[in-house]
Amino acid sequence: MIIKTPTKFFLVSGSSEGFSLLNAFDGALLASGVGDTNLVRMSSILPPGCGEVKPAPVPLPQGALVPVAYASLYSDVPGEIISAAVAIGIPEDGNRAGLIMEYSARAEERVVVEQVKKMAEKGMELRKRSIKEIMSISATFKVVTIGAVFAGVVLWD
Amino acid sequence: MIIKTPTKFFLVSGSSEGFSLLNAFDGALLASGVGDTNLVRMSSILPPGCGEVKPAPVPLPQGALVPVAYASLYSDVPGEIISAAVAIGIPEDGNRAGLIMEYSARAEERVVVEQVKKMAEKGMELRKRSIKEIMSISATFKVVTIGAVFAGVVLWD
Amino acid sequence: MIIKTPTKFFLVSGSSEGFSLLNAFDGALLASGVGDTNLVRMSSILPPGCGEVKPAPVPLPQGALVPVAYASLYSDVPGEIISAAVAIGIPEDGNRAGLIMEYSARAEERVVVEQVKKMAEKGMELRKRSIKEIMSISATFKVVTIGAVFAGVVLWD
Repeated sequence: MIIKTPTKFFLVSGSSEGFSLLNAFDGALLASGVGDTNLVRMSSILPPGCGEVKPAPVPLPQGALVPVAYASLYSDVPGEIISAAVAIGIPEDGNRAGLIMEYSARAEERVVVEQVKKMAEKGMELRKRSIKEIMSISATFKVVTIGAVFAGVVLWD
Repeated sequence: MIIKTPTKFFLVSGSSEGFSLLNAFDGALLASGVGDTNLVRMSSILPPGCGEVKPAPVPLPQGALVPVAYASLYSDVPGEIISAAVAIGIPEDGNRAGLIMEYSARAEERVVVEQVKKMAEKGMELRKRSIKEIMSISATFKVVTIGAVFAGVVLWD
Repeated sequence: MIIKTPTKFFLVSGSSEGFSLLNAFDGALLASGVGDTNLVRMSSILPPGCGEVKPAPVPLPQGALVPVAYASLYSDVPGEIISAAVAIGIPEDGNRAGLIMEYSARAEERVVVEQVKKMAEKGMELRKRSIKEIMSISATFKVVTIGAVFAGVVLWD
């Protein structure tokens, strides 16, 4: 193997205003508790046996390279509602992988959460894998000047 | 070094319909045989001495973090043709790196493959590196409702 | 930890014409001295104690997986000016993380550099972290047919 397979996960989310779109995103990461790490984005599987650690956010070493599946959105349209959510399909069979789905939209949080959960269900169906539970986390924000939302599944060891 | 340099590679491709754009992408990954891994996207070099493993797709551990160079495209325009392809310029000199190029378009597979091969050739020319062979793989799909295509070079050890 | 935390960094930038948008990007990477590596993009922290290595670009093993924070832009509009820049907020307290910001635009280099430095300042302010120094690097290019710019902070060990 090239990179160690993660054995732990936790869910985080946050939102922020910012000086620029990227500063707003950075603020949302800080609000989520992962703002001082180096997020490495990946497509979106929960390894078999990967267990939840609590309470989230777990303190990570500053500057660590951290695999994460996430949804985010930023906007500079004052008054706009933006929402981001992730969902994990946890399989009944603990020897199988779970599936992480991400979704964000200029829409109410409720709409985005419903959609991302449905996406995780459909992805597990495609795998013919019985679902024990759908976990999810989300963030929503009404933009003042420039804002961002972030929701992610952080994998760790 | 921070992450181990890969020593093996294989080519994969696939396509799928899906409940959402991301579900279609997930379906294309499953069709490619890498749907239960965590793809980490990278820019696009074949390390010297990196050898092809067959038959592809090689079974990878569920949830493993897997470096990959890929092209993909999704569409929710019924009837649209979408294609994705990758090409590798394999150097004559086995001590030099090869180059991976990615291309996708709302176009016929033939057009996309021709373009990506040309891109790999031009990139090797820029490096003044003689080409032993151009390898490539591609996927094409006619969208019914929501569809996606994926073609990638998976690196492994 | 899943991936080793980097202990060294260096700044690189470059620009290029190319046969396609991706070839121009590839050319900009080659001009920056990192064109034969596998860049893994990450969000954007300088780990505490991470020291600059000189002269940049440091020769890296061909095909190595290299964490990098970068800004880039490509264009196929003849005559267009494109610029990319990164800035690092170096903290006074060597036990704290620094912050990397990225910015690119169809604008003069001076404008893009000023903006990215301001972004790094604002991000350090949000962390209530005193700044020792703002480092930055940038690239600018006037497109002939198809062109790209790249500026990045490469992390290494």
